[in-house]
Amino acid sequence: MLTGHQTWTFAQPPVILSTATVVGPDEAAGPLARDFDIVHGDLMLGQDSWEKAERKLLEESTKLAVENAGLTNGDIQMFVAGDLLNQIISATFAARTLAVPYLGVFGACSTSMESLALASLIVSSGAAKHAIAATASHNCTVEKQFRYPTEYGSQKPPTAQYTVTGSGAAVIGASGEGPRVTRATIGRVVDMGIKDPFNMGAAMAPAAVDTIQAHFRDTGLEPGDYDMIVTGDLASVGYSIARELFDKHNVRIDQTNYYDCGLLVYDVERQSVQAGGSGCACSAVVTYGHLLKRMKAGELNRLLVVATGALLSPLSYQQGESIPCIAHAVAIESGRS
Amino acid sequence: MLTGHQTWTFAQPPVILSTATVVGPDEAAGPLARDFDIVHGDLMLGQDSWEKAERKLLEESTKLAVENAGLTNGDIQMFVAGDLLNQIISATFAARTLAVPYLGVFGACSTSMESLALASLIVSSGAAKHAIAATASHNCTVEKQFRYPTEYGSQKPPTAQYTVTGSGAAVIGASGEGPRVTRATIGRVVDMGIKDPFNMGAAMAPAAVDTIQAHFRDTGLEPGDYDMIVTGDLASVGYSIARELFDKHNVRIDQTNYYDCGLLVYDVERQSVQAGGSGCACSAVVTYGHLLKRMKAGELNRLLVVATGALLSPLSYQQGESIPCIAHAVAIESGRS
Repeated sequence: MLTGHQTWTFAQPPVILSTATVVGPDEAAGPLARDFDIVHGDLMLGQDSWEKAERKLLEESTKLAVENAGLTNGDIQMFVAGDLLNQIISATFAARTLAVPYLGVFGACSTSMESLALASLIVSSGAAKHAIAATASHNCTVEKQFRYPTEYGSQKPPTAQYTVTGSGAAVIGASGEGPRVTRATIGRVVDMGIKDPFNMGAAMAPAAVDTIQAHFRDTGLEPGDYDMIVTGDLASVGYSIARELFDKHNVRIDQTNYYDCGLLVYDVERQSVQAGGSGCACSAVVTYGHLLKRMKAGELNRLLVVATGALLSPLSYQQGESIPCIAHAVAIESGRS
Repeated sequence: MLTGHQTWTFAQPPVILSTATVVGPDEAAGPLARDFDIVHGDLMLGQDSWEKAERKLLEESTKLAVENAGLTNGDIQMFVAGDLLNQIISATFAARTLAVPYLGVFGACSTSMESLALASLIVSSGAAKHAIAATASHNCTVEKQFRYPTEYGSQKPPTAQYTVTGSGAAVIGASGEGPRVTRATIGRVVDMGIKDPFNMGAAMAPAAVDTIQAHFRDTGLEPGDYDMIVTGDLASVGYSIARELFDKHNVRIDQTNYYDCGLLVYDVERQSVQAGGSGCACSAVVTYGHLLKRMKAGELNRLLVVATGALLSPLSYQQGESIPCIAHAVAIESGRS
């Protein structure tokens, strides 16, 4: 099971039985619009606060994922979820609605793969027949909580990133039809001393590279063993840094197969998203919406998703702390050769 | 492995190889003072903010737990930790110091047993040789974040609880000497509509009872199969409610064997702690300090720790939401009959 120091290799790989994705208007205006299950034209989702809108995103994705698996809530023994809001209230309120056993997790934007790795371990070890991994983020809740009151309309530097409004959920089972979770590499905290919360990509890139190096060191695989390696939300600044770090550390990634969800989810040239997408939902909706649809269509067979997280709080930043970062990698395979 | 709907039964129970506890001055003035490994006379711990003091509590407990196990950080493949601060920054900064693979979790004051259950599953399934479960809380960081700026010196109703300043950590291994984690019941969110953040005990008691009922329903055990059942931090108000709920739901607990960590950690009559203790560290320091020492001394053989968590944020409370609660139960056994 434990391979090397920080990688799990699932002897009986659990199956992603179903997924569901929900997004807001900016994501629906992007290049992946047709890959999402539910699209909202309004950031409020008919709620009276952005926080309640974020919760609704997560409630909708989990409900649809359970339906898509042909299951009911009573079939689910575990809900592994988290989000960016203080005390992960979106996940908790969604857990209240689901009324199933709940493990709250926090990995900032790495939560998508933290939850998928854990749900896979739980199912693989027989600790649940079915588990849900899910996360959500909302552009306005994040702006309000981490940066400035949204009413200020404050300007941002081009290194800033644009938080995805959306939610992605996956139902994991021990057997059945669907792509399989074959490996997971759990990241360490990497902190290069960067203190600029408007340049998360630069802060997170070294964590992504650290986890990718660990994955290949632990497994003995080569980057070419995957059809695609995709980071979570480095966006244009972090993506460039990651590519430089691969060269520097002699990680032989065929860079035509290396992508970043923060650059896939938006048309960075055309949309006003600064360096690209971020937020817990970024890697979740791109993976569960776009990439697994490509896998189903036979365009991808072996995928490594490396979700990145900047684990700061507004308070730690205000107290002069640098930004600790982490990345968790999950390998998803179609089973086709 | 999965027993009933929400309980894990470990076929090869992982071992608590070592623990370490660190507390502040109020806990050192309480009845369990001699059970803690490190006692600080000053709430600042020589740091320049309370948040940094909280981080230091966690760094000290994890460092000492690793030493007590006769290991080094390089032997640890997983750090499972969380705390009450926004974005669980205490756990994250401690993870940066440890430099080992890290899974951040959030279960408010249930984090002690959420992290122990997960670390046990990870070790039991072979996903790590050694894992640390840890959590911390600090009275002043919590007052500042969840209630009023501490400088106000605002008064509190007698139903309020007093957050424990401290940290508890446990090193889990697949084999060796020590008490064993035999079962874990993962809780569901229970929300009875209570909205008063100065009465957490009343909000959390139904969640504790729900998880305890699930534990006995899933396992077929009887309350008398444990020498002691202890809830996390219901304190005097929640403890009384839990006792009433046991009677109401016909849970046949011998109430002379039922305790609450929030009432054990302080002398509630003599110390100014309102209804009793709370905070992530409450159940952690009582379990890892006091109760496991009693188990080692032969006074306890079968213990069920039911850590309770109130999963609110200041924002959700201000938006008129009720307080969702959860409880996770972990069974720890000496192996003696």
